[in-house]
Amino acid sequence: MNRHHTAVLLMVCPDCNGIIANVTALLARLGANIVYLDQHTDHESAMFFMRVEWDLECFSVSLDDFKTIFTHESARKFDMIWELYQSAVHQRMAIFVSKYAHCFLDLLARWRTASLNVDISVIISNHEQVRTDAERFSLPFEHIPITAANREAQTEEQIRVLNEYRTDFIVLARYMQIIPPALINAYSNRIINIHHSFLPGFPGAKPYHQAYVRGVKIIGATAHYVTEELDAGPIIEQDVQRVNHKFSVDDLIATGQDIERSVLARAVQAHIERRVLVYNNRTVVFS
Amino acid sequence: MNRHHTAVLLMVCPDCNGIIANVTALLARLGANIVYLDQHTDHESAMFFMRVEWDLECFSVSLDDFKTIFTHESARKFDMIWELYQSAVHQRMAIFVSKYAHCFLDLLARWRTASLNVDISVIISNHEQVRTDAERFSLPFEHIPITAANREAQTEEQIRVLNEYRTDFIVLARYMQIIPPALINAYSNRIINIHHSFLPGFPGAKPYHQAYVRGVKIIGATAHYVTEELDAGPIIEQDVQRVNHKFSVDDLIATGQDIERSVLARAVQAHIERRVLVYNNRTVVFS
Amino acid sequence: MNRHHTAVLLMVCPDCNGIIANVTALLARLGANIVYLDQHTDHESAMFFMRVEWDLECFSVSLDDFKTIFTHESARKFDMIWELYQSAVHQRMAIFVSKYAHCFLDLLARWRTASLNVDISVIISNHEQVRTDAERFSLPFEHIPITAANREAQTEEQIRVLNEYRTDFIVLARYMQIIPPALINAYSNRIINIHHSFLPGFPGAKPYHQAYVRGVKIIGATAHYVTEELDAGPIIEQDVQRVNHKFSVDDLIATGQDIERSVLARAVQAHIERRVLVYNNRTVVFS
Amino acid sequence: MNRHHTAVLLMVCPDCNGIIANVTALLARLGANIVYLDQHTDHESAMFFMRVEWDLECFSVSLDDFKTIFTHESARKFDMIWELYQSAVHQRMAIFVSKYAHCFLDLLARWRTASLNVDISVIISNHEQVRTDAERFSLPFEHIPITAANREAQTEEQIRVLNEYRTDFIVLARYMQIIPPALINAYSNRIINIHHSFLPGFPGAKPYHQAYVRGVKIIGATAHYVTEELDAGPIIEQDVQRVNHKFSVDDLIATGQDIERSVLARAVQAHIERRVLVYNNRTVVFS
Repeated sequence: MNRHHTAVLLMVCPDCNGIIANVTALLARLGANIVYLDQHTDHESAMFFMRVEWDLECFSVSLDDFKTIFTHESARKFDMIWELYQSAVHQRMAIFVSKYAHCFLDLLARWRTASLNVDISVIISNHEQVRTDAERFSLPFEHIPITAANREAQTEEQIRVLNEYRTDFIVLARYMQIIPPALINAYSNRIINIHHSFLPGFPGAKPYHQAYVRGVKIIGATAHYVTEELDAGPIIEQDVQRVNHKFSVDDLIATGQDIERSVLARAVQAHIERRVLVYNNRTVVFS
Repeated sequence: MNRHHTAVLLMVCPDCNGIIANVTALLARLGANIVYLDQHTDHESAMFFMRVEWDLECFSVSLDDFKTIFTHESARKFDMIWELYQSAVHQRMAIFVSKYAHCFLDLLARWRTASLNVDISVIISNHEQVRTDAERFSLPFEHIPITAANREAQTEEQIRVLNEYRTDFIVLARYMQIIPPALINAYSNRIINIHHSFLPGFPGAKPYHQAYVRGVKIIGATAHYVTEELDAGPIIEQDVQRVNHKFSVDDLIATGQDIERSVLARAVQAHIERRVLVYNNRTVVFS
Repeated sequence: MNRHHTAVLLMVCPDCNGIIANVTALLARLGANIVYLDQHTDHESAMFFMRVEWDLECFSVSLDDFKTIFTHESARKFDMIWELYQSAVHQRMAIFVSKYAHCFLDLLARWRTASLNVDISVIISNHEQVRTDAERFSLPFEHIPITAANREAQTEEQIRVLNEYRTDFIVLARYMQIIPPALINAYSNRIINIHHSFLPGFPGAKPYHQAYVRGVKIIGATAHYVTEELDAGPIIEQDVQRVNHKFSVDDLIATGQDIERSVLARAVQAHIERRVLVYNNRTVVFS
Repeated sequence: MNRHHTAVLLMVCPDCNGIIANVTALLARLGANIVYLDQHTDHESAMFFMRVEWDLECFSVSLDDFKTIFTHESARKFDMIWELYQSAVHQRMAIFVSKYAHCFLDLLARWRTASLNVDISVIISNHEQVRTDAERFSLPFEHIPITAANREAQTEEQIRVLNEYRTDFIVLARYMQIIPPALINAYSNRIINIHHSFLPGFPGAKPYHQAYVRGVKIIGATAHYVTEELDAGPIIEQDVQRVNHKFSVDDLIATGQDIERSVLARAVQAHIERRVLVYNNRTVVFS
């Protein structure tokens, strides 16, 4: 997955014949060496999804020129919604975190070893617990405490801070506050949450306690984009681990934290690599 | 897991000190060579669970005598509920099945190759589709069709047939009818159902369709004992498989059938080997 | 994966720009509704692999005509090796089996429930143990015993029987004899073997005993095409299960048989659906 | 897995009747509330293994007195090798690391969030790359470069540093140097290595390259105790991930690093919780 010096084109349009032929012919004409192409047709909605990535080295036009050409020769013809990215341009990720630091530290470690090709814009927390960790890695930390009374004002403050640090997307690394619509709308399909259960099982609070009571033999975690309905947004990634009757609630929590870490990291990775498309509250996650 | 010529003792009692010492001392005195011992304490309910299995070869008393001794020296003292089995005695399993034959044929194959040490008492179906398969393996087949009008009478007929064929427990191998309380009570914690979702997600009808709409990235199956509340009985075994946006509902069904097969087989195996204890609508499944 | 009334085109050629554009443009011109397209570039060998599947309903030419057109407009230009199939045409599968029947019965069950869209041409065994099972399902059974002395002659007899029953490919469902080069060459990349270990670990005889001695925490199985070097052919599918110190060799065998069953079934499914390409002793398995 | 204020007794002895009865009777007499008991009999070697953990709150004797009593009443009688630990006493872990920091940072994160109940004695590296990371967390860092010429002297230096920082056990978190016998003997069964393949497949150098060439469909990692034979020590933990033909060597490395992280963390956790016994180059890992 060497993604340096490539362009990524993501597109959605009504399904019909000839889309792949059109786009690949255009790219071939412009000298693009395609390093990735995958597409998906959702037969229920009759929609077509595609991700194409090509090497920019021998590409004969600038990306700005390409946008114009593509609009005229492909996008308008097939009524496409589309996005174009350069994989060399790092996105700027804000991390929201409360007291549990395991997902937060895992993201920092992956960022530090460059396994996540991302810039961290700012750490925002409603508590002070992880300030030291942010400072260890010389990252900006903003303490924005939330109460029932100040929620609205603090949401505005969060948006101001996110803007100040030029944030492209947000990761809720076990952030224990409801995200208000104002923030969701400002970052539509760009807020990734990790929920500590295998959704749709055990939504809401204390999922590990719920799992204990129900006596499940497998627990999981779910990374999804945040929408206004709690824990019901489009799922990006899930994973599970086998447990048994010997697991206390504390054991479930400890095991679950490992799942949360890796599920969140994989979802963030997919988002960063522009591999995720959202449609009808579901995701297409290209491999 | 060579379990021939052994005795299995399953017990539940309020937790307190000295239970293991008491039971193992008794068994040691009687010459038992313990081949398996595992126990579990549920700290929430303060209950203690144990499974002990020992070789009968050098055991110095008959199992009938042992029952008397055990009652006096252990069971009464610790207020135990307990069961004693000989692993050499095969249980008699009835299989209920409707039209989907994959779980049914998988159980037959495992029985045929002796990977399931069980006798099959009778096949009961509300349809005729699997009659030929039952006959291939020379197994008794009873067609008991169910309608809203005849359900009560047919349940009585089912119980009569089950008794006639001396049935110890029932496996619902994708049997698409609600089990009425009369039958549940006759075989309490002895009816194993396979539900084609990862419970508690997607209970009830058409779980693969529900999974498709929700856009989950993993699907599963759940084997549980049947209780009066639909799909809410004690879970014996679960497993899952990774899926993605390319899976149509038909693909989910095909993938799910593989999970159903193996989850049901493992649950039946655990039940046969007397490794399952039920308490508070949860199971202890000894390994 | 509803694959009825479709055509499948598999191709391999040296990588260069414009292949996808060429092929998809041709198909678009001929009215093909593409239901599947995936491609892969092996950067080490600079080879390009593609699988395209399209609905035949609105396709404007016969497949014979398409072959001519495709040869002229695509295949020659890019120096392709290619194959064209109709997914509605069932392949004919022979099963070789010795004494262990678990994989064999699993394949029969999947064939019986139409989860494997295949015809069974003939069952060949060096033993008599599974004759009854073949007869249960009214399948031709040929007993061809093998000794060191008669191996060569019996291989010819096997090939004669395979031809008589018009066999497209062979599945070794735990067949405990070395396959001689004469047979391998007659069915190159069309003999699927299930090896009962996670290759390259534990090749050769008694892998579960080897796994026990080494104390591994996970065991597996491997389905691969048979080549002259034992257990070294191109791997189609693998899977694993967690085990622990409590597993005796017999337990490893019992657990392993479950893995063997599902790994072999998935490999056969991939082969039947024309999703496998072999190159440099490795496989491309399209999803 | 709440392990505070408990004692852990690990024992190995020739198998015979009455061991469990003897030990549990002794503990019951001394007021021990057993919170964990598991045992294992290796029938091949006829050896018995047991791990017992009990709450120290109501225990009527000191651990020193218990050692004397236990020696007289149990250990001598059954010819036991045994160890006694207090779970409240943190072990001191040294980490050896070269250039790859992913396992190292993961261990630090788990130590920082107290999911690993351990003290870190010292970080030893043959390179300078992770010095900054050690310093971020205020941990002692010793740079001990290794060449063919200085290996012997530097091993002595390593042992000196390990002693100086009072080290109980060593974790090789992707440390790319052979460990000489002098160090192995000083920390017998107390050096945990993470090998980046699913052993016994792909021992030695560049396992991901080997995996690529062989075309495996699953890759893995293995944590084991270091012995003099390279990559052949007793396996503590393994795990795997599914891969496919699209994975380049770099992709295999990236995916593999995730497996390495979690496998190493779980092995360290098992070691810290005194759940591992070694016998005949295999491990018993109690759950």
